[in-house]
Order: sequence, then C-alpha cells, then structure tokens
Amino acid sequence: MNVTVGGRTLRVRTVTFDAARNAVQLVEQRLLPHVFEVVKMADYRQTAAAIREMVVRGAGAIGATAAYGLAQGARAFTGQGLAGFRRHVDQVFRALAAARPTAVDPVNAMNQVRAAMEAGEDVAEQQSLALAAAEEFANQDVQHCKAIGRHGMSLIRNGMNVLTHCNAGWLAFVDVGSATAPLYAAHARGRKFHVYCDETRPRSQGATLTAWELAQEGISHQIIADNAAGLLMQRGKIDLVIVGSDRTLGRTGEVANKIGTYTKAVLAQRHGIPFYVAIPLSTIDWELRSGLRIPIEERNQSEVLGAWGWIEGSANGGQAGKRRGSRRLVYARVANPTSGALNPGFDVTPAELISGIITPEGIFKPRELWKHRRRLGFH
Amino acid sequence: MNVTVGGRTLRVRTVTFDAARNAVQLVEQRLLPHVFEVVKMADYRQTAAAIREMVVRGAGAIGATAAYGLAQGARAFTGQGLAGFRRHVDQVFRALAAARPTAVDPVNAMNQVRAAMEAGEDVAEQQSLALAAAEEFANQDVQHCKAIGRHGMSLIRNGMNVLTHCNAGWLAFVDVGSATAPLYAAHARGRKFHVYCDETRPRSQGATLTAWELAQEGISHQIIADNAAGLLMQRGKIDLVIVGSDRTLGRTGEVANKIGTYTKAVLAQRHGIPFYVAIPLSTIDWELRSGLRIPIEERNQSEVLGAWGWIEGSANGGQAGKRRGSRRLVYARVANPTSGALNPGFDVTPAELISGIITPEGIFKPRELWKHRRRLGFH
Repeated sequence: MNVTVGGRTLRVRTVTFDAARNAVQLVEQRLLPHVFEVVKMADYRQTAAAIREMVVRGAGAIGATAAYGLAQGARAFTGQGLAGFRRHVDQVFRALAAARPTAVDPVNAMNQVRAAMEAGEDVAEQQSLALAAAEEFANQDVQHCKAIGRHGMSLIRNGMNVLTHCNAGWLAFVDVGSATAPLYAAHARGRKFHVYCDETRPRSQGATLTAWELAQEGISHQIIADNAAGLLMQRGKIDLVIVGSDRTLGRTGEVANKIGTYTKAVLAQRHGIPFYVAIPLSTIDWELRSGLRIPIEERNQSEVLGAWGWIEGSANGGQAGKRRGSRRLVYARVANPTSGALNPGFDVTPAELISGIITPEGIFKPRELWKHRRRLGFH
Repeated sequence: MNVTVGGRTLRVRTVTFDAARNAVQLVEQRLLPHVFEVVKMADYRQTAAAIREMVVRGAGAIGATAAYGLAQGARAFTGQGLAGFRRHVDQVFRALAAARPTAVDPVNAMNQVRAAMEAGEDVAEQQSLALAAAEEFANQDVQHCKAIGRHGMSLIRNGMNVLTHCNAGWLAFVDVGSATAPLYAAHARGRKFHVYCDETRPRSQGATLTAWELAQEGISHQIIADNAAGLLMQRGKIDLVIVGSDRTLGRTGEVANKIGTYTKAVLAQRHGIPFYVAIPLSTIDWELRSGLRIPIEERNQSEVLGAWGWIEGSANGGQAGKRRGSRRLVYARVANPTSGALNPGFDVTPAELISGIITPEGIFKPRELWKHRRRLGFH
C-alpha cells in the first residue's frame, strides 16, 4: 500500500526480500504510527528475532517472514553436500518456528517452502527454489487479500459509515489486509465512505495501526473509544461493521478475534447493522467443534494498567523506550498502582451474530463454511 | 471512607470544611490514584478555581464544594450592613456558579444554603446559618448515599462477581458514592465478592478512581479493558452490573451515564445478568420526555488520542504535568499523529435494559419512577 515519507509516496509491502543482500526487509511495526522505518534482517537469526520481538506481527505477515527467513537461511549455506544442507535447513526451520511457538502460520508457510525446495537436485537448485517458493507464498498472501477486497467491496456504498476493530490491515499481512481489503478496494474505485476505528484497548492497534493505514491511503476516518460504538449505533451513525479473525471455526462459523469483537457483534445485531468478518482461508480451523474450546490467551496485566505513547522532551527516564528526535516512546502507568488487571486477549463471536464471512472465494454465511469446505481449502 | 497513607488509615471525606481557617478542604483528584493529597482552598475564589480545574469532580462533590464555598465567602465578609453583605454573597454565588456552567448541582446546593441563611437577622447570624446549611447539605449527601447502600446491598451475595463502569464512588460525592454504596455496605457486613472495574476510556476513571477506592477499602477487584466484559459475561464470570448516572429521566426511566454504559446494558441483557443503576434523587430529570433529547457532550479529541499516566524519570519534558519525587504525570500520545477522534462523553440506556434503579428511597423499576414521583422528590 502507500506510505508517504517526507513528501514522497512509496509503494510498500510489510515483508519483502532483498535477494542481492540475502536480507528480509520488514516495516518496523513497534515504532508505528509515529515513525516509519523499514529494517533489514541480515541473517535468519535476526529474522527469527524480529518475529519473536514483534517487529512484525499478524498471521499473514509472520507467515511470509518465516517463509523468506527459511529461504534466507538456506541461501546462506556455503557447503556442497545435500545431507549437510538438509541439517542446516532443519536448524533454520526450528529457529524460526520457535520464535512464535503458538502461531501456526510460520510453520505452515515454511512447510510450503520446504516441500517446494526438495524438488531441487542439488544445493544451488534447492536454494533457488526456496526463494521462489517464499516469493510465491508472499504473492499468494497478497492475491488472497485482493480477492477478499473484490468480494467485500460490494458491501460498501457511497456515504456509508463503517466500523472496524483492531488491525486486520496490510500491516498484518504482506499487503492489502483482510478487514481493510474491502475498504481499499472501494476507495480505489472512488467510493466515498467514512471509517470509525475502535481504539482497541489495551494494545490500541486501531488507534495506532489501522488509523495510520487509513491516513496513508487518504481514507476519511476517526478514532473512537471502544465505549463509543454503542452510542453511534443508537444514533444511526454506523451502517456496517467489518473485522478480521484470528481463527474461524469451519464447522460452526464461530469467530475468535481480538477482545471486544463480540461486544460489537452484539450491538450490531441489536441495531440491525450488518456484521462481516474478512478472513484468508489459512485462518479457518476445520477441526474444533465448539468455540468454547478455543483457548483464550491471558496477556500481561501491564497492557491494561497503562499505555505506550510518545511524549515530547529530550531527557532520560527510567521507563523510556525508543527515541526519535525530541520525542520518545514511554510506558505511562495510568491505573491505580495497587490494583491488578485481568487481560484476556480474544473473544469468540457466535455464528448467529455474523452476517457473512468474506473469503478470497466469496462471501459465505458462517454456518455454510462447512458445506463449501472443499472450495475453502479443507482436505 | 478509608485512605491508608504511610501505614496510617484515615477516615476521609471528599469535601470538608475547616471552620477555624475558613477553608474548604478537598481531596486533590487530579493526582489520584498515584498521590493522595488534601488541599485547602483559602478563599471562595480558590474554591471556584478548584471546581473549574477539576480538583474536585462528580455531582455530589461539586455540589457540596459550592455549598461550602458560598458559606466560606459569606463568612469572609467583614462589614456590618445586610445590604452590602447580600451584594457580596451574590458575587460569591456567581463566581462559584460560573466555575462549571453546565452543572446543576452547585447552583441547587447554593440555593439551599442561601435560602437557609436568609432566616438570619444580621450578618453574623446569616454567616453562621450559611455554614450550618452547607454542613447539612454535605451530611444529606452522605445520608443519601448510605441509604442507596442499604437498599442496594441486598443485591450482593457471597461469591458474586460485580461489574462497574466509570467512577460513581465516594470521590464523586461527599462520601460513600452511589454505584459503590451497595459494595461498601455489603463489604462492611462481611460479604465476600469480587469487582471488575471497567477501565472506562477515554478518561480511565474506572482504572484510576474506582480501583483506588476499592483498593483502599480492601475489596477484591481487577481492572479490565472496556472490551473484556463481553467475554467475561459469555464465560459466566459476571453476576451483576451496577453503574451510576449523570441524569435519569423520571418520565421514561432512561439513564444517561458515561460513554460505554449502554454497551454494558446490552451485553447484560443478552446474558440475563441484572443491570442496576444507583442514583441520588438530585439526578432525576422530571421534565425531559425522551432520552433522544439529552444533549451528548462532545469532548476534546486529545482524550481519545492519548492517555495521562505516570512515568519514572527526573527529567523535564515539554508535555509534563504534575511531579512527585522521581515520578511525573505526562500525556502520552498513543494514536496515529495524523488522525482525529470523535469523543462523545455520554450515552443513554433505555429502561428496557435496566433491572432497577437504586435510590435512597428504595429500588424501583425504571418505568415506575414516575408513579412514585412524590416520594422521589418531584414537586
């Protein structure tokens, strides 16, 4: 998508590969939205560290990063023998997989790269195939998101107000995004609409990442507190809700997504507002038979008890983090210092509250995913 | 209520009066929850400034502050003539009323004080009656809150999990609070329960003030993101919701309260969880015939775009505010710097979502307030 830096507009992907330098290039997401920077990972260990330390986040984006990281590691092998090469690749695979142990995308992506490279007859050919397969994985991710956009843009008409939650944007994929794909497609075709970005406490991905993406594209938008959507719906100010999903159950149509998604779905139903979920096929779970079995990650209390933000001032401080010019990123403790917090990361929205699931293969009723499972990639 | 400072537990009211020094004493709420401090307002102009600058906030608390402020101003008059005294008191009244021009509580409270003092036959007697009336106003506020607690505590049983939103605690009144009154009454009688405090973005009164109050009283509690209550209700972790109200329509039972209240009421109804609103009688509006006519204040965008919190570090910074030791209070910009926000301060919850209104006179169905209007203070 577009990023304007110092008056110049660039076309940027979240994850790319510099073949000449054998480097994985990532948008440094921890500095966004205040600083835009592309960082180069010079070897696979740096790439694994970037996944672990959240330089890159989002299912599609970490999948592509791991795919490129595996190719990067394979290409760094300087020996001749295939046996030694395989041992080396296994080591790279394990290092990248261990960077985010609960995520399935890096492993799935690397399995795809490894299967493709094994068709090569010598080390050089396998190295070449690995890079081609990683590039293909990244391009597929973009094509899937674009297809979500083509199907979803029919929902967005002139004059609409659209609510979204968290960030299921291009920063979470290689490009385009899932929940944002219909917005970008409609905007590209000249449709005029307005987006309300839920702040999405406690990590504020809506206020930071989604708002930044929309600003870069020149799409009309405002940030609202997570508390405000109910009033806006009451007053007829929201016409459509589109969110992403971390895991969608193919058997039941239940959707696990960022905490607060369920609340928006309940409100939307009460007000008769369509509620759509945009997903790539890789996030469909065809096994689980109930959303109650989806484990809800409990995250660090500090996320709820304070906020990361930028302050002006050149001075040092104990809890200060990154710095750019006179601004620095700090963690400010907001809450009462003698209180604790409970911080569940996700919730589960039942199928009855979901108008449709927007996939690269079209829009489906949530309870009809199973009927269309072959088309949706279930083997 | 109780405040423990440096190992000593004090009994504290939000607003008190030091007759010897003719000073209004206030808990400095802008430093809470990180610093507890009682500040003395030496004359009525300082008292007006304290209302204006939010040293004190909350309907009951600013009412009592204005009542004491009027007595303070009256007592500072050193002349003899009643005519001059009346002109002076009018000036004090206007200064205090202008400090928070949209609030009705200071004016109502001061009218009560002025009516009482006018029974006095000379300046000295009127001065004495003014202070007595201000004290009575403050004591009435406490008695009303205690009565809310007596009626509401029947709702709280051992083992319950109670959700509250924003701060309708003792800091918003002279003591005890409205939504917190049933909690304090049940706790005093030894009942064991747990409270989830909604953070209450954008101003975080739940994470700061309510959590601090509960911690001071030793009541088990956790702060949650406003997004998390839906999941907790889904998983059976919330048994009761109690909130306060800024304005309750006596004719319809609709409740205007802090933004996000309506969302919690919608969720509670879906999950069959009782939803109660605790109010002093002064917040009932007997005139308005529809919640749609309640003006929704739109507040400054900066509240949504960032957060106020404390950081460690002794250095100066451009946006820094108050300082205590090595900690300082800063405004951290969280959101994308090129995005704006929409920041409505309140929403309106319809009667159908409210299980009951807890008043000093008992618990009523929201649609039955009108039937009981004489008992509830409508003249």
